[in-house]
Amino acid sequence: MNIILEDAVKKSTDVKEKVCEWRSPEELKELLDLELRDEGESESEILQRCRDTIRYSVKTTHPRFFNQLFAGMEPYSLVASVIVEALKPSLYTYEVAPVFTLVENAVLRKMMELIGWEEGGDGIFCAGGSMSNMYALNLARYHHCPDVKEHGLSAAPRLVIFTSEECHYSIAKSAALLGIGTKNVYVVASDERGKMIPSALEELIETAKKEGTIPFFVNATAGTTVLGAFDPLEEIADICEKHNIWLHVDACWGGAALMSDRHKHLLKGIHRANSVAWNPHKMLMVCLQCSAFLVRDKTSLLQDCHSSRASYLFQQDKFYDVSYDTGDKSVQCSRKPDSFKFWLMWKALGKGELKQRVDRAFAMAKYFAEQIKQREGFQLLMEPECTNVCFWYIPPSLRNLQGHPKFWKKLHTVAPAIKERMMKVGSMMVGYQTHKDRVNFFRMVLVSPQVSTEDADFVLDEMHNLGKDL
Amino acid sequence: MNIILEDAVKKSTDVKEKVCEWRSPEELKELLDLELRDEGESESEILQRCRDTIRYSVKTTHPRFFNQLFAGMEPYSLVASVIVEALKPSLYTYEVAPVFTLVENAVLRKMMELIGWEEGGDGIFCAGGSMSNMYALNLARYHHCPDVKEHGLSAAPRLVIFTSEECHYSIAKSAALLGIGTKNVYVVASDERGKMIPSALEELIETAKKEGTIPFFVNATAGTTVLGAFDPLEEIADICEKHNIWLHVDACWGGAALMSDRHKHLLKGIHRANSVAWNPHKMLMVCLQCSAFLVRDKTSLLQDCHSSRASYLFQQDKFYDVSYDTGDKSVQCSRKPDSFKFWLMWKALGKGELKQRVDRAFAMAKYFAEQIKQREGFQLLMEPECTNVCFWYIPPSLRNLQGHPKFWKKLHTVAPAIKERMMKVGSMMVGYQTHKDRVNFFRMVLVSPQVSTEDADFVLDEMHNLGKDL
Repeated sequence: MNIILEDAVKKSTDVKEKVCEWRSPEELKELLDLELRDEGESESEILQRCRDTIRYSVKTTHPRFFNQLFAGMEPYSLVASVIVEALKPSLYTYEVAPVFTLVENAVLRKMMELIGWEEGGDGIFCAGGSMSNMYALNLARYHHCPDVKEHGLSAAPRLVIFTSEECHYSIAKSAALLGIGTKNVYVVASDERGKMIPSALEELIETAKKEGTIPFFVNATAGTTVLGAFDPLEEIADICEKHNIWLHVDACWGGAALMSDRHKHLLKGIHRANSVAWNPHKMLMVCLQCSAFLVRDKTSLLQDCHSSRASYLFQQDKFYDVSYDTGDKSVQCSRKPDSFKFWLMWKALGKGELKQRVDRAFAMAKYFAEQIKQREGFQLLMEPECTNVCFWYIPPSLRNLQGHPKFWKKLHTVAPAIKERMMKVGSMMVGYQTHKDRVNFFRMVLVSPQVSTEDADFVLDEMHNLGKDL
Repeated sequence: MNIILEDAVKKSTDVKEKVCEWRSPEELKELLDLELRDEGESESEILQRCRDTIRYSVKTTHPRFFNQLFAGMEPYSLVASVIVEALKPSLYTYEVAPVFTLVENAVLRKMMELIGWEEGGDGIFCAGGSMSNMYALNLARYHHCPDVKEHGLSAAPRLVIFTSEECHYSIAKSAALLGIGTKNVYVVASDERGKMIPSALEELIETAKKEGTIPFFVNATAGTTVLGAFDPLEEIADICEKHNIWLHVDACWGGAALMSDRHKHLLKGIHRANSVAWNPHKMLMVCLQCSAFLVRDKTSLLQDCHSSRASYLFQQDKFYDVSYDTGDKSVQCSRKPDSFKFWLMWKALGKGELKQRVDRAFAMAKYFAEQIKQREGFQLLMEPECTNVCFWYIPPSLRNLQGHPKFWKKLHTVAPAIKERMMKVGSMMVGYQTHKDRVNFFRMVLVSPQVSTEDADFVLDEMHNLGKDL
């Protein structure tokens, strides 16, 4: 326990330590001695395994880890995680997980309040945002044609769904998994900021109808993965209402803005959604995983859609109100009480502090974008709308080539080269990607209140240090 | 941390403490003060929340918790869990989770070795056994008709699957979710021990073919949820080969027997399966969750079936071998490194000790069944084949009624009444259920090596104490 506290908690979050100690897969295999044998190892060997695991793992809680849509260390949430691990609960029934069942209900209720569902709704915590989006798609389908649950799709008409080209890949994955098919995901054009264009959505719906398909689901994204764009929810909701289509909002990333009076306008109209996915493990820093699926329906659609009424778990002759047995709302059987990690943290910090954190992350993104504008050799893709900041670093050798046919081709190789160097030095982690016809650029993600302006400045300094000779 | 170690680890596993301190939902809501507010609470209030959470939670690690297919406290696995929580890793790519990526591969390889896939295969850890079974169904479908991924099922012929009436409910849930439909789950009869009848399977396949459907998937269960039955895998494999049908073995529960030379015969033929689901979080006592999905295919079917090639995560121009980036094999995006909890524990204990634990659980089930046979007022449903022991407790008032028309009707009410009392006393937890035309009976699950013959005897004594006046 001391090793964990010292190495995995304190050292991992210490800015003077490395974010990662890079080893290639081949080297790391040798270092770790992965083989599982007949004989057990001694206590001291096991302690060494623990130390090595921590040492060679990436420190996602380090103040200079900006590679994913989560970061930082939230101590209250960590304490809650450890309680969960020690208690080994699983959320099938009230009798097996009384506290966590009630906590989940309380947290879901509060999240629905923030969404603006005054009359409440229903929901469940899932194993990540992809699962939450998948639940939305399944629920919408069940709402639209409940027969599919029993009879499957083979006799059903062609069901189609709509999402913007900027959406998370889980929408397509879910469509594949659910037997809808990726070709029946109609991809709506987005504007230059990455927001879905409502008129394009409506045109596509009309087209789909003319093709004889059944449009039943629109996914709007509140905070896209790469650009951090917020789709215009009010206009999309108008269209969905007009065409009687289920509106799901994937707010896994941007949902945190609902905490902030200053930024919640970005999600204006979210209360009109039929369902929402929202991951407090992202900008709110709850320990992984913590993803809520929320649905406005109050007619037990979630239960009806997923239930199978297993008699060994969900007996109806129990001595308490079995409506507290929420396990049959889930596609999972054993399910961890992820809501508790959010609940304890909220209890400790209050909404006031959570709000401030969100505001600080947005302010820090703004600060970072300003620095980029002021520095030579850095170029913003666009002003950030969320806390993702996308930009190119242009090494001195390329600065005079702007406009030259080779410029973009060469720039494309810069981010991967800098990424390799930063991994090997271990000084920070920032992700890169292409986007449509844009060559490789960096996506800086500002989440953690533990990140200072010095850390932000460091990223730009270090990028220049690592890439100036390219 | 001290509170957690003292209350959640030590006291929870102390046989002198209660398994649970029952409160009704209404009482517990008042006790916990669930409301999330604008203001944060003081340190001492938060400590009290932690204490209350632990106090009113069910102690699934207690030696007298027999309510689920998991139990007990495995210290090495717990340490691994806490390391994971402290490091906050997520398994998308090698670069973000180098250690855990390699550990997952090593554990999967070892599990495939135990299954008997000499040439290896592929696999992934999932968020629970239901997910692993769902992966199997999706992969089998993709193998059979890869077009479904893109085009969906609406133009496809009617696909049907086969499973025994004793199988886990996740098979039906998965069929509903995947758009196959629960009516296309053909339920194969099982014998009086709960084993699938191979001739019934073959007949049903023939019937399905005559109906013009496409049979593509058979689920066999190795260790059924209620009775603990093992389907005859060799005979089922013969039928699947003959009809060119994907054979999946749901060994979530019974897979642990593969560890034991004495009991692995129960899964004879499992090497012929196309895929296997196996939960080390059950009989092997890894902390929740730890569920492996394993597939014999070596042609990257898993990756092809689930991949969406998100450019922001799975860049192809990285500086290391990107075949180590396993995230696109998954339907989840963020995914916890559950394999590590198994790996560290195995490293510490060795296979020798794991094998002994499994043998001990089987021996304990046998012991328990013997006690039932010897005691008045207890009746076995059948000899246990796995470590679930199913039995009735017959209170004195009913003992002379055997054969009387009211006997079964009255007996049906006994288990729920005893369950209520044991929850309120907090002395132990054992689940009950009906099964086909059998009235409510208890299912005792023997998993943990921390359970002694005294604990087993206690269950029968206590059941009599709680139920003798009924």
